[in-house]
Amino acid sequence: MSERIARVALSRLSEPGDVRLAALVEGLGANKVFDLLRDEQDVAGVYTDVATRLRDLDPERDLGGAEAKGIRFVCPEDEEWPSALTDLDRAEPLQGRGGVPLGLWAKGPMRLDEASGRSVALVGSRSATTYGAGVSSDLAAHVAANGLCVISGAAFGIDQAAHRGALAVKGRTLAVLACGVDRAYPAAHRNLLDYIADTGLVVSELPPGCSPTRLRFLSRNRVIAALAQGTVVVEAAVRSGALNTANWTTRMNRVLMGVPGPVTSAPSQGVHELIRTRDAALVTRGEDVLELLAPAGVAVAPDRRGADHPRDSLDPRAQQVLEAVPVASGAGVESIARTSGLGTAEVTTTLARLKARGFVEESGAEWRVADLATR
Amino acid sequence: MSERIARVALSRLSEPGDVRLAALVEGLGANKVFDLLRDEQDVAGVYTDVATRLRDLDPERDLGGAEAKGIRFVCPEDEEWPSALTDLDRAEPLQGRGGVPLGLWAKGPMRLDEASGRSVALVGSRSATTYGAGVSSDLAAHVAANGLCVISGAAFGIDQAAHRGALAVKGRTLAVLACGVDRAYPAAHRNLLDYIADTGLVVSELPPGCSPTRLRFLSRNRVIAALAQGTVVVEAAVRSGALNTANWTTRMNRVLMGVPGPVTSAPSQGVHELIRTRDAALVTRGEDVLELLAPAGVAVAPDRRGADHPRDSLDPRAQQVLEAVPVASGAGVESIARTSGLGTAEVTTTLARLKARGFVEESGAEWRVADLATR
Repeated sequence: MSERIARVALSRLSEPGDVRLAALVEGLGANKVFDLLRDEQDVAGVYTDVATRLRDLDPERDLGGAEAKGIRFVCPEDEEWPSALTDLDRAEPLQGRGGVPLGLWAKGPMRLDEASGRSVALVGSRSATTYGAGVSSDLAAHVAANGLCVISGAAFGIDQAAHRGALAVKGRTLAVLACGVDRAYPAAHRNLLDYIADTGLVVSELPPGCSPTRLRFLSRNRVIAALAQGTVVVEAAVRSGALNTANWTTRMNRVLMGVPGPVTSAPSQGVHELIRTRDAALVTRGEDVLELLAPAGVAVAPDRRGADHPRDSLDPRAQQVLEAVPVASGAGVESIARTSGLGTAEVTTTLARLKARGFVEESGAEWRVADLATR
Repeated sequence: MSERIARVALSRLSEPGDVRLAALVEGLGANKVFDLLRDEQDVAGVYTDVATRLRDLDPERDLGGAEAKGIRFVCPEDEEWPSALTDLDRAEPLQGRGGVPLGLWAKGPMRLDEASGRSVALVGSRSATTYGAGVSSDLAAHVAANGLCVISGAAFGIDQAAHRGALAVKGRTLAVLACGVDRAYPAAHRNLLDYIADTGLVVSELPPGCSPTRLRFLSRNRVIAALAQGTVVVEAAVRSGALNTANWTTRMNRVLMGVPGPVTSAPSQGVHELIRTRDAALVTRGEDVLELLAPAGVAVAPDRRGADHPRDSLDPRAQQVLEAVPVASGAGVESIARTSGLGTAEVTTTLARLKARGFVEESGAEWRVADLATR
């Protein structure tokens, strides 16, 4: 049996994120591990767990059936296997799950390594606010228009908005599922998932036909974090699954980012906690994300600043004189000097300069502000 | 002439935040500096600037007139002079202004050193949103109820909400003005300022009668930052004066904090920039502020977390079994083992444990979830 077929078999036998199995495969190779299990050797207790599933196992038929549905199995021996996933072997397990996936079942025209190479995960609450969904979609559109692949989990709320934002600009997007890629979860996202599979990529650790479970969502989150260069949490209540993805992002030393929101909004509380206590970088727009993911010096986000006022070009002492010039009735040099707290000679010279630049006007021995708008 | 009267005189002569004058007074004493100016000695160019104001100077009358209005002059030789202000002599000037104030004109029953001792400045946009004003008021009420003095600038928007929040819980509040403390700026805040002066404290570097100017606001901001242990910026557009206060806070090595808001809200952009690029701490509630200002270990903010689900008390493998038990129609041990990916012996034992705790129920050889709500 080839390594590939052995990996397909183990993928069907095990629950994703089984650290014992990942360690065995890393040490012995998939083929050897599968032989041991078929011989009912209970290495690391794995046999006992998978015994009932061993009975009707047929990996060749599994693979053939998947291929008939346009689904391929991508594993470490394939060219499109992204090196980013291999980093999972060094990340500490979380809630007992972890390890490099045995392979990913994939549907769609995009190459997995290309999707992962320049990418960002956008994750967050299923119960997103209009605000959160809008920000997710805008961020996704911006980074996708700049060539990044938007990775998310195809759930309601933030995930959906992220995929749609990327699709809206004909950008790249990748959905990572907690069930087989031939299934639609949630069912309402059938069309969205079909569209992503037509233009981008839908992947899962789980073989076709599998249903999602809570534990599978937790394992799935590590794949999202591992595939992406960084993860943005858009909205997440304090118990949101998105915080699990954030945890994996930190474990993998990838860039963790969070979008702030109103402190009065429950779906923003988890994000604020990430920024406050987990050193997540605060991001407010696509440029910030591009800057944080770019190599040093590339894609520096433009400064946010308001329009300059003409008076900002004046030195502080000239501003001090200008401020002492009345708007309505005029005033003499002596009075302006007293008001400004500057000497009469300096005030006289400065008033002439200000007049030349159109800030003040003179009428007899009296001065007043020329144009209120320039103050 | 006493040092005090000399300081009153210099306070009337100079613009606040004149670093030359602060350095001269630090080096020579106020009396000596005033003598030099009266003798028309142009030390550091100060005489030229103040010459017109020297003519009708009468510090004793100034002080007497102020006292008749219930206004006192607090200077470094007074017991209530807060040591926090003296730190300004080590802070680098900003836009040419800086230095320790010559003194502060004060109106109100609170001692200035007590106001400054445990305090936080809440500052922000005049054009605050309803959200920002609400957060300002809530934060102020929380910290004031915990004994902190709320320091602000009595402006529209965030400032006003901060003072009112503190007053609403009968807490301490201090307003720092950019005009004489006998004046109301803005005029609409006459009642607010009177109330603060009746119960707390209104202070200014400027002698009674003086009007506010743009430069005086900038100098005033350094006094706010210097009096407070830390500064919270609640809302601030990218050109807001509150960012000037934030700048002074950083210069004085005080704690700088920012309240996040929607990334789509212009008045929150300046705050997000402070958190992103100036290491301002993100705060979302009064507890966060108290924690950041408290000595290490005191006043640790309680964790934000959601309610626990009963199933969270189960170990991961028991959860894995529970998830494989159907909700509607029942299933046998063999089927549950296959679905969960666990061995039949373990599944049998675990189902008994889950039944004892009320998670599942047995009917014949079939198991199903006992109470959907506990999942």
